[in-house]
Amino acid sequence: MSLDPVLTRIDSDLDKSLERLKDLLRIPSISTDPAYKADCDRAADWLVNDLKSLGVDASKRPTPGHPMVVGHIDGPGPHLLFYGHYDVQPVDPLDLWDRDPFDPQIEDTPKGRVLRGRGTSDDKGQLMTFVEACRAWKAEHGTLPCKITFFFEGEEESGSPSLIPFLKENAEELKTDVALICDTGLFDSRVPAITTMLRGLLGEEVTITGPNKDLHSGMFGGAAMNPIRVMSRIIASLHDDTGRITVPGFYDGVPEISDELRAQWDGLGFDHKAFLGDVGLSDLAGEAGRSALEMLWARPTCEVNGIGGGYQGDGFKTVLPSQATAKISFRLVGTQDPHAIRKSFRDMVRSLVPADCNVDFSDHGASPASVMSIDNPAFDKARAALSDEWPDAAAFIGSGGSIPVAGYFQNLLGTESMLIGFGKDDDQLHSPNEKYDLESFHKGTRSWARILHALSDA
Amino acid sequence: MSLDPVLTRIDSDLDKSLERLKDLLRIPSISTDPAYKADCDRAADWLVNDLKSLGVDASKRPTPGHPMVVGHIDGPGPHLLFYGHYDVQPVDPLDLWDRDPFDPQIEDTPKGRVLRGRGTSDDKGQLMTFVEACRAWKAEHGTLPCKITFFFEGEEESGSPSLIPFLKENAEELKTDVALICDTGLFDSRVPAITTMLRGLLGEEVTITGPNKDLHSGMFGGAAMNPIRVMSRIIASLHDDTGRITVPGFYDGVPEISDELRAQWDGLGFDHKAFLGDVGLSDLAGEAGRSALEMLWARPTCEVNGIGGGYQGDGFKTVLPSQATAKISFRLVGTQDPHAIRKSFRDMVRSLVPADCNVDFSDHGASPASVMSIDNPAFDKARAALSDEWPDAAAFIGSGGSIPVAGYFQNLLGTESMLIGFGKDDDQLHSPNEKYDLESFHKGTRSWARILHALSDA
Repeated sequence: MSLDPVLTRIDSDLDKSLERLKDLLRIPSISTDPAYKADCDRAADWLVNDLKSLGVDASKRPTPGHPMVVGHIDGPGPHLLFYGHYDVQPVDPLDLWDRDPFDPQIEDTPKGRVLRGRGTSDDKGQLMTFVEACRAWKAEHGTLPCKITFFFEGEEESGSPSLIPFLKENAEELKTDVALICDTGLFDSRVPAITTMLRGLLGEEVTITGPNKDLHSGMFGGAAMNPIRVMSRIIASLHDDTGRITVPGFYDGVPEISDELRAQWDGLGFDHKAFLGDVGLSDLAGEAGRSALEMLWARPTCEVNGIGGGYQGDGFKTVLPSQATAKISFRLVGTQDPHAIRKSFRDMVRSLVPADCNVDFSDHGASPASVMSIDNPAFDKARAALSDEWPDAAAFIGSGGSIPVAGYFQNLLGTESMLIGFGKDDDQLHSPNEKYDLESFHKGTRSWARILHALSDA
Repeated sequence: MSLDPVLTRIDSDLDKSLERLKDLLRIPSISTDPAYKADCDRAADWLVNDLKSLGVDASKRPTPGHPMVVGHIDGPGPHLLFYGHYDVQPVDPLDLWDRDPFDPQIEDTPKGRVLRGRGTSDDKGQLMTFVEACRAWKAEHGTLPCKITFFFEGEEESGSPSLIPFLKENAEELKTDVALICDTGLFDSRVPAITTMLRGLLGEEVTITGPNKDLHSGMFGGAAMNPIRVMSRIIASLHDDTGRITVPGFYDGVPEISDELRAQWDGLGFDHKAFLGDVGLSDLAGEAGRSALEMLWARPTCEVNGIGGGYQGDGFKTVLPSQATAKISFRLVGTQDPHAIRKSFRDMVRSLVPADCNVDFSDHGASPASVMSIDNPAFDKARAALSDEWPDAAAFIGSGGSIPVAGYFQNLLGTESMLIGFGKDDDQLHSPNEKYDLESFHKGTRSWARILHALSDA
């Protein structure tokens, strides 16, 4: 089956594709807010009907939360699973939007034409790049080049509570040769990317209690232990002077990246001064001797996400506080074991707490890193296909954030994922005025057509 | 003039004294709440009338806030100024009171009889011990043993905004040989005290800014500096391992207490295990090798009164915060210079902030310590008089807190203050169910009668 007519049809069909996407975007499928439950259901129905129009055997599957959409269509090539999510983030604060977030419109901007509205990039616009690529294949050739299972979730923005149970219950139905996940971005506007490394995340909340109530700092200060002082010592001791994390055993399972990957990353010419400059910084704050991309994609971190204790209002109050609390998270890489690190972290913290103070820990979740097996030939084929569509060659990149579904596919389905998406850094995900570049949508759709073609030739 | 009949009259007049105090306590003179402005005025009027009944030339003096009450009465001995305040703290939360805070009543408790109500201890009850002692002197002898200026403030619980201007404008009228301030406590129920050392206070708020907005800790973590980490390093570096404060020059002007005072304090048998045990602690957290009373009264401190940054709500948010803020205060002793310490502290903090972060400081006030010149013979006379009234000998003690009026009298009037009061640790100042022991009131009144007698013999 030839690719060129498929690409030509995508080009000529672009306006209609955008109208379909706008239809889906008008449904305010905010998953975290129960007031929008019916809208989430309506978005699932819309997708079922749209898939059926392609000849997909699609259905809405109930869960205790919002429904999943699952569809199957046969084809000659390998069996692929495509994952996206139809739910969106809330839109507050609404007064920061320049338009109704659920009345999507195309706008001309200095950087090009964009589609503006909630979900344009995350994830309805990305999801529809794949569906539109399939529609063009089907229209030109009457069939798809691969066997495809569509799997759309409606709870991604609210913690995916139904995802693991659903995958477990339907593992046989959802197992495929490889999974495609469209919820990531380009490396930059010239360089497409396949995300092959996702950092894991370990969350801990630490509460130090000194005196059993807030004290007068004049009456007790100097004699009574201050828990903020204890907490500060703990936090200050988590990194050494070279930026390395001091939790014993923390670096067990942290691999060095291969020379090939290092060369690829060096070749990307990442401008960390510009990256940090956008947020008012200039200096890399991670481990000495590491590149910026290593720090962001391939090295583990320890961050304090929040701290609080004592009087935080206006003015001054001479209180010697009873408690100090910090939320501390670790981004994990390679085969770092979150449970072993949690234990080692807690032991270390306990060793730094004076006998007179108590420490309590709360577990805020743990997920290991996901590292894809890029020796699967699908990765190189997809990379070549992406490189054909975009100005520069595609890169295997990492992501500092976590996309848990890739790990679930690995662990529950035994399926490796290719994370490919076309979002840009300025898409304003989760924020007012979210947008998706028309270039992302158009070339993204063409990219999937190419990838389907490349994988079907396997 | 003989003392004994004065003491006898105080004893026989006790019930009437308590009724007068209850009259004053029924006026809800909450100075910080404008709704009670007329009540503050009424309390001032009540005191003017009461002083007039003793033959004092008393008047209400307007200020931009609540009025002062000033009264003069002649007498043979030295000229004394007596200071107290007629305003009280708010009573919220009202539901934690066992009775109407402005309907004072005598209660029997396991520790003895108490008068319960707002202001019983702080400061109306204490103030009236002095007035009642004067009343008994006047009744027995037709005159007072000393020349006395009464000076009552109505804004002590709301920051004393009118005090300094009033003292400056009326300095000539208010200058006396020695001032008596009745707003402190006993050392314990057997040991009366003259507070001769009050720590000063320096307040600073430090804000560290890293990135110019909150960042996603996955997208930026590892490469971008976290201001909570910077703040924690700063706080952790403020004390060394022996508990000494590391701000350069901080200990300039910190005197060692005299051997005599050390012996006196050692003789008090202060039980720091019980003191700390009441608040759930057991170990002294101050400088190694110092006694508990030194830590509380004679050594400077550095406390973090509050800290905040990043996400502090329920659950977890993987934010790399833009800012961290801490409120830090120093208690000062001897001749430590708060302005020099502020500068040294800021220089030290700046040296610990990476080039990439900004630091801002807010000044939350500075007052030096007040150390009374106890070589003034009035101190030894008052100490002997107190020792005659109470089971054990009176002590010269320090106070960890600040009573700014003593410093103002020193600096603006050139008058040394003797801080003598009869409150107990469990009086619940500023809290629901405030009380004053009848023993404090009765023996307090007798104590002042003795002190007036002792000073008049000079």
